[in-house]
This record gives sequence, C-alpha cells and structure tokens, in this order.
Amino acid sequence: MQRYFIPKANWQNNTISIEGDDAHHIIRVMRMQAGDKIICNKLDASAAICEITELNTDSVTAEVLEWLESNTELPVNVTIAQGLPKGDKIELVLQKGTELGAYAFIPFQAERSVVKWDARKTDKKLIRFSKIVKEASEQSHRNRIPEIRQAMNLSQLIQEGQRYDIKLFAYEEEAKTNEFHSFSSVINQVKNDDHILICIGPEGGFSQEEVTSLKQHDFIPVRLGPRILRTETAALYALSSISYHLEELGGTSCQQ
Amino acid sequence: MQRYFIPKANWQNNTISIEGDDAHHIIRVMRMQAGDKIICNKLDASAAICEITELNTDSVTAEVLEWLESNTELPVNVTIAQGLPKGDKIELVLQKGTELGAYAFIPFQAERSVVKWDARKTDKKLIRFSKIVKEASEQSHRNRIPEIRQAMNLSQLIQEGQRYDIKLFAYEEEAKTNEFHSFSSVINQVKNDDHILICIGPEGGFSQEEVTSLKQHDFIPVRLGPRILRTETAALYALSSISYHLEELGGTSCQQ
Repeated sequence: MQRYFIPKANWQNNTISIEGDDAHHIIRVMRMQAGDKIICNKLDASAAICEITELNTDSVTAEVLEWLESNTELPVNVTIAQGLPKGDKIELVLQKGTELGAYAFIPFQAERSVVKWDARKTDKKLIRFSKIVKEASEQSHRNRIPEIRQAMNLSQLIQEGQRYDIKLFAYEEEAKTNEFHSFSSVINQVKNDDHILICIGPEGGFSQEEVTSLKQHDFIPVRLGPRILRTETAALYALSSISYHLEELGGTSCQQ
Repeated sequence: MQRYFIPKANWQNNTISIEGDDAHHIIRVMRMQAGDKIICNKLDASAAICEITELNTDSVTAEVLEWLESNTELPVNVTIAQGLPKGDKIELVLQKGTELGAYAFIPFQAERSVVKWDARKTDKKLIRFSKIVKEASEQSHRNRIPEIRQAMNLSQLIQEGQRYDIKLFAYEEEAKTNEFHSFSSVINQVKNDDHILICIGPEGGFSQEEVTSLKQHDFIPVRLGPRILRTETAALYALSSISYHLEELGGTSCQQ
C-alpha cells in the first residue's frame, strides 16, 4: 500500500487534505480513485490506513479508517555525523541510512574532507537530500522522516555532542590499542529513546587532532568489525548492527 | 600500506614475483622503490608484509619480511544469492558485500527480476564484477577475494542449497506469520566455518511460487529488521548483522 507523509497542518481530526507532489502522485502516477486505500503518516510518527474520498485537479481528500500500531522506528535515536565524502556518496548514506532507521544526519566538514561545502551549494543540496530522505522513509515504511541538519565543523560537532546520551566515532585503530571499547558493549548499555551520535570520518579518516579532540570530549572510539569499511559503508554497518542488537536479538541484552 | 593479491604460482618460498596490473600499480601509480614495504596476500587467505627488492619495466620482486596473524575474514562463509536488480545496483552489492565479508556471490535470475542476463552479456559483466570485488577486498584488507558464481535460476539455486549448512531467504512477510523464525536465532546456532546461503529477492520481492519452493527445500525465511529494505540494502544488513553477532558480540552466544 502506498505511504505518504502529510504535514500536521493538513490533518483535521480524521480528514486529511493532500496537496502538491503527493497529490500529483496519487492522481496522475498511481491513478487512484475514491474508495482506494493509502497509508498516511503524520510527521510525529503516527500512521493510519486511509480511504480516498475525493480527488480534484491538484488535491486529494482522505479519511482515516484505522490507526496503525506497528512501529518501524529504531528504539533509540541514532544521528549519523558523516564526514563529507567525495562525489555523491553522501546520497547513498542518506538513502540507505534512512532505510536502516537513522534519526538524523549531520554533514560533517572534516579536516580531511576533499569536498568543501559553501552556503550557496548547500541550500540546493539540502533540497535534493530532503527528497531522497523523504522517499526512502516512505519506501521503507518508516513513521518519520530523518532530519538533515546544517553542516558542522569539528568544534560545532563537539558542541552538538553535549546533547546526546552517547557519542561515538568510528576508528579502526581502536582495536589495536589498550583502551579498546567494543561497539557492542556501548550498545548493550543504551536505554530506549536514548540519543546516540555516531561520527564517521571521510575517505582519509579522522586526523590525529580530530581524534584527540573527540576523545577529550567523551566521544568513544569504536571499531566497526575487523575489516576496513569505506566511509559510505560505515554508517550502514553501524545502523544495521544497532537494529540487529535491539530489534532482532530482542529485549535480552547480551553480556560480553 | 598497499595490499596486493598475488596468485600462488608467483610465490617461491619467501620470494614473490609481481606482474601485470599490480606491477603497473607499484611501478607507475605508487612509484615505489626498492626497500619500500607492501602487504602481499596469497589467495588462500595468508598475508605477509614484504619488502620490494627489485623493480623492472613490467615486474616487481618482493621478499617476505613478516607473516601477518590478523584474520579479517568472517568466522562463517556467507554466500549472497542476490535476485538480479535493476541497473548497476548489483555492483553496489558486490562492492559493499565484499567490504562486509561475503564469501561468494550468486547472481540469481528471480521470477520478478526485470533484468535478464544472457550468456554473452554475462561474460563481460563478470570481468567488470571481478575487478570490483578484487579492489574491494584489497581496500578492506581482506585475506581472500570472494568468488562470483555463474548466475542461477530457482531450481539451480535450490540444488546449490544442498551444499550449505544453513540456508535463508529474506522475507519481510515472515514476521507476520506464526512460524516466525528470527534471524538472530539462526545466527546463534552457526558454528565456525559453516557455509551459509542467504537469498535476497529483487525489487519485486520473491514470487509466491518461489517462497513455497524455497520453504519446501528447507530455506528458512527471516526478516531483516522491521523496516522494508531495498533489494541492494538487504545483503548489507545481513552481513553487518552477522559480523556484529560473531565478531563484535564475541564468543558468548546470546540466548533469546
């Protein structure tokens, strides 16, 4: 069944007014008719099966038939701070990170990021990125659309970190040191609704200064498996692992 | 340090003769000199730090300095049977599946695969795919290069399944049935070196006939988290989860 995210303002009790691209999709792409059913999501994570009652040239009206119980959100809120990678790799992270349950994304202007974003480029990108993330949310039947935050440099990211219950950064050198923190021991300790920040370095990795600074500000270095992952794969490993630990292994926490 | 996979035939005790693309890379791309160090992998999964002793126009000689202990292979052998997806999505699965530790890949001509492979197209593709997989192995510091098998249809895949200790297929409808098999309960039971086959449907999913047939032949249906994943993301979730369970959670198996 097709799913659409409809802004709160368009909901009046159980009647929903659908406009813009979503209306276009219903009317011209899917060619739906009165009586057809769709899923409508409020942006606060609730969702309902709705029946289309009216179709106009540019708008559609639907009525809630049944609220949905199922929750397709991760039990914790994972924000991915992605070191800006080359080319359009960040779009892969946004799309698949959304499929895999990310709460939000922060583009991180890392020291070794080859690509530099300026304000003008960023606005255009953010429009495209928002489309990618909205579409991925709908297609993966999520109850909310991840937020894409403004790009941050290291000091902004460190400041941002103060708002989180747990903050990590992917650092493959970690496994070789004595202060080894395992990723699973961190995930083992999370509580429902915790806000977790995971920072991923760009292709060149984190610089020594970034590593020192992150550690000084209580960002926990973790490895993500024993293999070197490309920058755009790391977030996908992290999100899949968190989902697996909390949604597939179930309520029983695993002691190491 | 640069890593190269050198065929067994080129190893004479501790002396390695490097030719072809790898020699070109060392001589002209990296511009190495005698005394420089590289990592050489034998295709049987052993690896050594080597010193370059001689460079010619088209070949390089190196000597083993030190064998490496670290194993970057998954403790189980996971073969991904990927329902042929549209476009070049399969390249994403091959590249990232390799980063994430896959043992082998089987392109699967599923009933709902939009793209159909013929023998002529397939040979050209296999050359390109082999390059992708070799490069991903080197970059992720794996000890072996995953094999890309010939494409199979359903009956060939079912026959192939007989060679595995465990065979699964990703089926999101599974979580809604009474015979729910959790992915983690399956992973919980694997033993080191087991051969696991994981089948992923194409964009349209598995057909009802495929589902029935796979179940009849002891392929276990599992869901991969509560969100719908795109065909090219499913294998990445599965491999990340297996790595997380067996390499990050450690030897202690988790009881559900």
